[in-house]
Amino acid sequence: MNPKMITENLEAIRKNSPLVHNITNYVVMNNTANALLAIGASPVMAHAQEEVKDMVGIASALVLNMGTLSKEWVESMIIAGLRANERKIPIVFDPVGAGATAYRNEIATRIINNCNPEIIRGNASEIMALVNQEMKTKGVDSVVSTKSALDSAKYLAQLHECIVVISGEVDYITDGNRVERVAFGNSMMEKVTGMGCTATALLGAFIATNDNLFEAAVNGMTVMGITGELASAKANGPGSMQMHFLDCLYKLSEVEIEQAFCTVE
Amino acid sequence: MNPKMITENLEAIRKNSPLVHNITNYVVMNNTANALLAIGASPVMAHAQEEVKDMVGIASALVLNMGTLSKEWVESMIIAGLRANERKIPIVFDPVGAGATAYRNEIATRIINNCNPEIIRGNASEIMALVNQEMKTKGVDSVVSTKSALDSAKYLAQLHECIVVISGEVDYITDGNRVERVAFGNSMMEKVTGMGCTATALLGAFIATNDNLFEAAVNGMTVMGITGELASAKANGPGSMQMHFLDCLYKLSEVEIEQAFCTVE
Amino acid sequence: MNPKMITENLEAIRKNSPLVHNITNYVVMNNTANALLAIGASPVMAHAQEEVKDMVGIASALVLNMGTLSKEWVESMIIAGLRANERKIPIVFDPVGAGATAYRNEIATRIINNCNPEIIRGNASEIMALVNQEMKTKGVDSVVSTKSALDSAKYLAQLHECIVVISGEVDYITDGNRVERVAFGNSMMEKVTGMGCTATALLGAFIATNDNLFEAAVNGMTVMGITGELASAKANGPGSMQMHFLDCLYKLSEVEIEQAFCTVE
Repeated sequence: MNPKMITENLEAIRKNSPLVHNITNYVVMNNTANALLAIGASPVMAHAQEEVKDMVGIASALVLNMGTLSKEWVESMIIAGLRANERKIPIVFDPVGAGATAYRNEIATRIINNCNPEIIRGNASEIMALVNQEMKTKGVDSVVSTKSALDSAKYLAQLHECIVVISGEVDYITDGNRVERVAFGNSMMEKVTGMGCTATALLGAFIATNDNLFEAAVNGMTVMGITGELASAKANGPGSMQMHFLDCLYKLSEVEIEQAFCTVE
Repeated sequence: MNPKMITENLEAIRKNSPLVHNITNYVVMNNTANALLAIGASPVMAHAQEEVKDMVGIASALVLNMGTLSKEWVESMIIAGLRANERKIPIVFDPVGAGATAYRNEIATRIINNCNPEIIRGNASEIMALVNQEMKTKGVDSVVSTKSALDSAKYLAQLHECIVVISGEVDYITDGNRVERVAFGNSMMEKVTGMGCTATALLGAFIATNDNLFEAAVNGMTVMGITGELASAKANGPGSMQMHFLDCLYKLSEVEIEQAFCTVE
Repeated sequence: MNPKMITENLEAIRKNSPLVHNITNYVVMNNTANALLAIGASPVMAHAQEEVKDMVGIASALVLNMGTLSKEWVESMIIAGLRANERKIPIVFDPVGAGATAYRNEIATRIINNCNPEIIRGNASEIMALVNQEMKTKGVDSVVSTKSALDSAKYLAQLHECIVVISGEVDYITDGNRVERVAFGNSMMEKVTGMGCTATALLGAFIATNDNLFEAAVNGMTVMGITGELASAKANGPGSMQMHFLDCLYKLSEVEIEQAFCTVE
């Protein structure tokens, strides 16, 4: 993980403006579309069973998010996921609220088994619930530390041969063997709904422009965290945080990325 | 109604972070989730018939809002409401647009009769439409004053043994006998979509942490109004109003609450 | 096109507060409701097949937007459109993403043929796709200039006897014969999701208060563009752009409209 590598990935997004197809939840659709626009990608939200195959057909990445899941939407996610596999375009999956209800556990498992996502991103409770269905989640909020979910993440990554991202105060990215730790970010991010979903959506843009999945995930979470730090420095609360996040993401520069690394080390 | 009582309720929300389960409308989901986070609660939005029972099973309050109702969602609301009754967790119901169409009147009646909400909150037209189905609402906007709806509110509260809140320039809270008048707030709040729905969602957090339903409703509407005043003092229009509202709600202090009371008296 | 005419239309919206019924997409519902409130109109979002007839029955304009279309919603749009025709209230149609999938092309054609919209507004790719179904759209983003879509727009306007608006860096409004060019706006608008949908929604307010459809469309796009310029002058990025847009729209004055014309000429 170094500033140069991250900046290059960011520049590739801005240059190529990849079409990222999102089948996501009602709460965050506006935010995630805006975050994808701010970073330079081209978002599209489409969920009709009649068209998801076609939309995946022109997309560079597919983002599946089960935040406000229901039967019809899940079917669309599966159809879109299978088409993405056929076309060999990457999938990022966000198991929002896994552990909160039996239905969420069932659907998360079904999506993972059918669609083989390249990246799974969740909070600690969600990632643990994907491995141990006895694990409980408080609605969509985590009740455990990211560190404690690391073994579950590694197991999951090995089992499904994918990248698993646990996000929280500190993020962990693993391919089952390697583990990268991203310690950027600010606690104000938890006070804005859909920040996790925004991370997932942005990973779609990074993975669409970087063949190295592990690097793409690390780059994405780093950009997310640094942007969160920059925005929180300007914010007076969660309302202005949300606004500054988009402004900062839009303007994020190589110098800012380098400076963030200097501050940490 | 006094500042101390309100601050205590607010502190209880911040300390306990109650899980508030919302089955609400598409327009306001993001705002209401953010308002609940800003006040210190833990919001979850989930509507699938397959999971609402389970989600109510871990929630501390249920918020039902029929803003963008449709058949499937109404069924989920009923299922969730019945489960909330079983678990004896409180329900806040928002009859958005009651009076605008026959369907809305029918569904509002059905939800009230089946789910027995602890609090019903609406604007004056909506509350009157629940009593007199000849009453007309202009879309989702009220066409009458809150004062004129007070008799309807009292009747409704007695009939269903619940608290009824009429919100508007002045809010009225009644249990059918007592009436409390809350005169905080600012006209700019009407220019931001979903401010009424935000009040309803916040009532979910207050009622989850206060066994006295009447007090909880008064406290919630007071916090809503004071926050609106603080935000409007900083706002240049409805866009910045929405942002400042979340920032002010997040930071709302005992001193600010006390000062607001001083200004009124 | 002159400042006086535009200001008069704006004043008519603020004075009459027309009820604009929107059946629109999940991504932009909040923004478009807020934009309609900011300009002085009264928005309502309702899509249940059981009630759209009744809601159209009290509305002054109907806005149909197929951004996140699905079978049930399309049926509701058709029902609402037919009722609007019966009542002779104007329809504005936004063929979001036409050209991206075969399903979108099919539905756009079906809505236009069944509902006979008074105004069709889209970006260049979308307008061209309505005429030439071989035309491709990149998700919901245009890949061609507005100028190049002008012939398609004229053809479409003549064929369906309606007004067609192509929006982009420069907007074109045509009734099939006349063409008006609106060159206000700012490139930051493209970085905020749903700005096109917001234009469509605002056209609903203009057309509800102006019997001259062509003028209403020109006025609406001019107000949209001038507001975008004013907002972008204050914005630091797409997040603050969205906020300032609503604030500026709320406050937009005759003087500001006049000054914008002076700057252009």
